[in-house]
Amino acid sequence: MSKTVSPLAPKSFPALPAIEGVRIATAEAGIRYKNRTDVLYVTLPKDTAVAGVFTRSKCPSAPVDWCRKNLAKGTARALVVNSGNANAFTGKRGAEAVKLTADIAAEAAGCRASQVFIASTGVIGEPLDAAKFEGVLTACEKKAKPTAWLDAAKAIMTTDTFPKVATRTATIGGVEVTLNGIAKGAGMIAPDMATMLSFVFTDAPIAAPVLQALLKKGADKSFNCVTVDSDTSTSDTLLFFATGTAGARGAPTISLPSDRRLKEFRSALESLLCDLAQQVARDGEGARKFVTVKVTGATGATSAKRIAMAIANSPLVKTAVAGEDANWGRVVMAVGKAGEPAERDKLAIWFGDIRVAVKGARDQEYDEAKTSAYMKGDEITIRVDLGLGRGEATAWTCDLTKAYVEINGDYRS
Amino acid sequence: MSKTVSPLAPKSFPALPAIEGVRIATAEAGIRYKNRTDVLYVTLPKDTAVAGVFTRSKCPSAPVDWCRKNLAKGTARALVVNSGNANAFTGKRGAEAVKLTADIAAEAAGCRASQVFIASTGVIGEPLDAAKFEGVLTACEKKAKPTAWLDAAKAIMTTDTFPKVATRTATIGGVEVTLNGIAKGAGMIAPDMATMLSFVFTDAPIAAPVLQALLKKGADKSFNCVTVDSDTSTSDTLLFFATGTAGARGAPTISLPSDRRLKEFRSALESLLCDLAQQVARDGEGARKFVTVKVTGATGATSAKRIAMAIANSPLVKTAVAGEDANWGRVVMAVGKAGEPAERDKLAIWFGDIRVAVKGARDQEYDEAKTSAYMKGDEITIRVDLGLGRGEATAWTCDLTKAYVEINGDYRS
Repeated sequence: MSKTVSPLAPKSFPALPAIEGVRIATAEAGIRYKNRTDVLYVTLPKDTAVAGVFTRSKCPSAPVDWCRKNLAKGTARALVVNSGNANAFTGKRGAEAVKLTADIAAEAAGCRASQVFIASTGVIGEPLDAAKFEGVLTACEKKAKPTAWLDAAKAIMTTDTFPKVATRTATIGGVEVTLNGIAKGAGMIAPDMATMLSFVFTDAPIAAPVLQALLKKGADKSFNCVTVDSDTSTSDTLLFFATGTAGARGAPTISLPSDRRLKEFRSALESLLCDLAQQVARDGEGARKFVTVKVTGATGATSAKRIAMAIANSPLVKTAVAGEDANWGRVVMAVGKAGEPAERDKLAIWFGDIRVAVKGARDQEYDEAKTSAYMKGDEITIRVDLGLGRGEATAWTCDLTKAYVEINGDYRS
Repeated sequence: MSKTVSPLAPKSFPALPAIEGVRIATAEAGIRYKNRTDVLYVTLPKDTAVAGVFTRSKCPSAPVDWCRKNLAKGTARALVVNSGNANAFTGKRGAEAVKLTADIAAEAAGCRASQVFIASTGVIGEPLDAAKFEGVLTACEKKAKPTAWLDAAKAIMTTDTFPKVATRTATIGGVEVTLNGIAKGAGMIAPDMATMLSFVFTDAPIAAPVLQALLKKGADKSFNCVTVDSDTSTSDTLLFFATGTAGARGAPTISLPSDRRLKEFRSALESLLCDLAQQVARDGEGARKFVTVKVTGATGATSAKRIAMAIANSPLVKTAVAGEDANWGRVVMAVGKAGEPAERDKLAIWFGDIRVAVKGARDQEYDEAKTSAYMKGDEITIRVDLGLGRGEATAWTCDLTKAYVEINGDYRS
């Protein structure tokens, strides 16, 4: 946890309500940090459905391997997350540490080890001493409380400068259900101390395959639209737990992704995931400005997304934003390198509401002073219209500052 | 031109010999800079064959469009390069400026406009006032000299901190021929003041299609293996001119790429291109360390190249090198994100000769103190063996320092 909070942090945190059957505890297991919590334990009621999406890295962490394997069974009873050590690139010992963690948690929660979901974040390549969870998780089970959400978000922080929480409600078949989410991440994604993790909980009675479909689509519209530095973690994990406890209050069980009663729930989920994803970009390492990149007029949605990400990932665009420079030349460069259909002479570019370029050249009416004033703000929107079709996409990122280099250039130990 | 020369700059510059029929002049056309040369004019003898490779950007500059169009004709009589303005994203006016430049140069050189090759580097999106070349190029034609190579390299510099030149000789059919090359570039590649340009000249009598084949292959092994910041310019241009003047000394004319007499020439060309490409990385914006990334044991050469570039492009790997941190966890991350076949438990990683990781975990015998000492040097080699096959590749880059952010975060005007 950094001492200097990002200037883009929210001014206050929402109070997350209880979700029936979900209880939360945090503890100091002494994995790596001193004088702060580093373990999150969440206990879940029987028959909790689970869905997950994970890093596309070809070298995933041991906990990612574990979660992937157990996801197929579709039920969860406990979640254990530690910060300080990512248990990634730890070979056979890493897999053994995950198994030991699951065994300890299973005993505490009174469930099977395969029902325990695990995530780890922190330094890579160091063996994780899971024996440190012995006793700690049993104590957690005893003291777990329904509304310790902010504590949960704090326990999983690494280089994050603020905890990330969000909550939404929706009705399913006339019954109100709740969605609560927490996230951490400050690089998208540094394997060393800045992995992206997010956990979402709901009391809605939704079958695991439906949950998986909702989560995958939601992730594509949220976390997969955020970048801090284009680096993909070994450990990225987004898990979604549905306790089904709202069923007792009359919420219908949803077993098909096409069920129309999901409409409001789907929107609420996407809104919650976007909220958390944007918080990650707002806490991007060294970030001083939050950047929204909107691409319109592309030949298709996939093409628009690739162009938006090329802009959002460009070190030159991001350093220009840091320097408060409306450098649309670099935006053109990034459009060009995306490899997607683009015609120079149809391109138009805006910073905020100010059109700076049109039809392949500088806008004659563009006002440098007005643009400079806009670039001094801490929320910058870059819009590109390709003038080719109807494809649209949005990406979120932050500027690239000297502080990013400082944070990541510091020696590990 | 920066006042602080890169610590990785060569200690001295080789003297490049004359190439019969090639004459060089530079001038101050006042495009943007004050008190320095900003135009390079090269006159070439009749029947000079030309080949070129260009940026893959979908939004190329007007000069790139011009060169591509005229390359098909295969002959060149003049080269005009200006620094200070890239003539990119300048719409119809940009194309008109290129045409005017070609007309002025054609009159000076006594050739057709289509035989004039043009490149521009500098700020993007500003109209280029080509009328400034009027008179200047005629004066250049009069004063052009055969050995002004270092002046040529200096006139095309933008954020470069040193001029880039290289020379080689080879024999073709027993006759010695010369290859001279110049390059500029300090970001790979910033469109705003740091585009990569390179021009290579030889007196060997080689037909244009053969020249093109040699150049394409050579570029793949040199410039296409270098990255500073993963950003692709609108203007990257590599041109290769063969005057054929060595024919008068008995060098045979080569009209097939498969001609065995090219063997030595091909090696000399590749060596020259690698030399220039590495100089670009050594002058990377803010660079303090030159980094070689070697990948072995991949399933194929393409796979190895993608993995090498993923490592060389990773901001986290590059900031770690800047921080003198042998952070192999970030190397694993970069291998993982490349999307190529990789098995965590077969990976091995070296910094220099020191093996830091093996079989999916930290090397038990790895000595932190020894590794730290190695990381303090200014030439760092990162080697990754995937243990899967025989695919190999090498990439060159530099570290990512605060100075990079500073250089690129400064306001344009």
